[in-house]
Amino acid sequence: MPVPQTDEQTSAFDLATAVRRADGPALLADLDPTWDVGGGILNGGYLLSVAGRAAVLESPHEHPVAMSASYLRAGSGGPATLQVTPGPAGRTLAHSLITMADEAGPLITVQATTATLTDAPPDYSLPVPQVSSPDECLDMAANAHLAAVPVQLPGMTRYVDSRLDPATARWALGKPSDEPVLRAWVRLADGRPADPLALLMFADALPPTSFATGKTGWAPTVQLQVLVRALPAPGWCLVEARASEIAGGWTDEDYRIWDSTGRLVAQSRQLARTAR
Amino acid sequence: MPVPQTDEQTSAFDLATAVRRADGPALLADLDPTWDVGGGILNGGYLLSVAGRAAVLESPHEHPVAMSASYLRAGSGGPATLQVTPGPAGRTLAHSLITMADEAGPLITVQATTATLTDAPPDYSLPVPQVSSPDECLDMAANAHLAAVPVQLPGMTRYVDSRLDPATARWALGKPSDEPVLRAWVRLADGRPADPLALLMFADALPPTSFATGKTGWAPTVQLQVLVRALPAPGWCLVEARASEIAGGWTDEDYRIWDSTGRLVAQSRQLARTAR
Repeated sequence: MPVPQTDEQTSAFDLATAVRRADGPALLADLDPTWDVGGGILNGGYLLSVAGRAAVLESPHEHPVAMSASYLRAGSGGPATLQVTPGPAGRTLAHSLITMADEAGPLITVQATTATLTDAPPDYSLPVPQVSSPDECLDMAANAHLAAVPVQLPGMTRYVDSRLDPATARWALGKPSDEPVLRAWVRLADGRPADPLALLMFADALPPTSFATGKTGWAPTVQLQVLVRALPAPGWCLVEARASEIAGGWTDEDYRIWDSTGRLVAQSRQLARTAR
Repeated sequence: MPVPQTDEQTSAFDLATAVRRADGPALLADLDPTWDVGGGILNGGYLLSVAGRAAVLESPHEHPVAMSASYLRAGSGGPATLQVTPGPAGRTLAHSLITMADEAGPLITVQATTATLTDAPPDYSLPVPQVSSPDECLDMAANAHLAAVPVQLPGMTRYVDSRLDPATARWALGKPSDEPVLRAWVRLADGRPADPLALLMFADALPPTSFATGKTGWAPTVQLQVLVRALPAPGWCLVEARASEIAGGWTDEDYRIWDSTGRLVAQSRQLARTAR
């Protein structure tokens, strides 16, 4: 395991996602109720990054490269246990199965694949979307009052700095779009650099893409897969979230995340219930 | 559970994916070694459809809507057990965790979400790609000999009829493309209509997208998520597979599947090791 850096010891993200060994077979965590999406409900990406920390702690590999989670019920914070069942482990990758539970029972189950990412340049990449610089984008926290329907700011916006691409932020100015697409620059507000654990959280950090179309309700995550594809360079990450099909009360949310150099560092897809 | 139809009792797909109750807590299956991708290795989508059948057998809901599987090692067929651990179940959806093992140990672990899909029309859809009709497409089984590098036909091609879009089939004529994209019409060769279980298999049924770029090696699946979005209409399904990032020995394979009416019926993403 890498030795924690000073910034990891003082970062709000690292404190809120810390896991520790105990006497029993399970790891322990204290889920921080302030990482919420509104209504006291913990963000799914935040929960996944806690599970990611447990996965690498029990793995010979450093990085969570594929994490698939089922969200069994909403969590609101407090003491939690993480039961990690190791699967096959080799030189290239290792598998494990994680169950995170709070005092009321299981919250999420996660299939984790860990590996050791290198800085190999890509052999093939799709192009990065063109987006205004963070300075020209809309600070979501500072502009929530502009939305046609008042948006209650999720607790986690104090930890995650988000700047919405004006091209996908017309909803925040009362002019919703037909396209369920959001793009934003994101970073940890306290300056902690992004890493694979932070990317697991970024992969569910934007509002539901239905916000872009003027529907600002909560869209509960049912199942989320995040792939971490590279180690992010320091600086802002660009996140694009897109729904491709909304039908019968279900939607997908498809994320692609690039680092400040334009490298694809993560991609994710979730099945969610549609916002009411 | 729906009563099996006559065609389900006689279809090769239904016979090969059958699961049955036994005295113990686990379900039993006989993995059919002829559903292989070459080299006696079972197709990942085939394994997932067996798990999907176990998921719906133990669920109050009829359809697998989200299935995330970790592929622990390659399977080659024979007797298998499926341990289904039920999670929360409600009126909208139910969760479970499935471990499929053969005589040598666990093969895949799967997080299953089941629900009951309706025929609600979509509220939002991305457009369907324009592709020639199946008759104008390339029958993969009949044309394997044309490939620049000889392609060994996977066993499963006898069960799955695939017709490659000529625009993404130039590799089969010795003229590879720069784009790792394949499109094909697929259907079960014995005429059994597609359903959510068949879609789980279709979501991993094409060759690796690296074939389009002239690399015809096997690309082992590490983790695969399939979302089933609607009940498919009878007839051919259109499958588009695309890699968005290939780097450091890893690739993603992103599938979208439409039915014969142009409705999006499934989408999937897998992390795989790149073909050698």
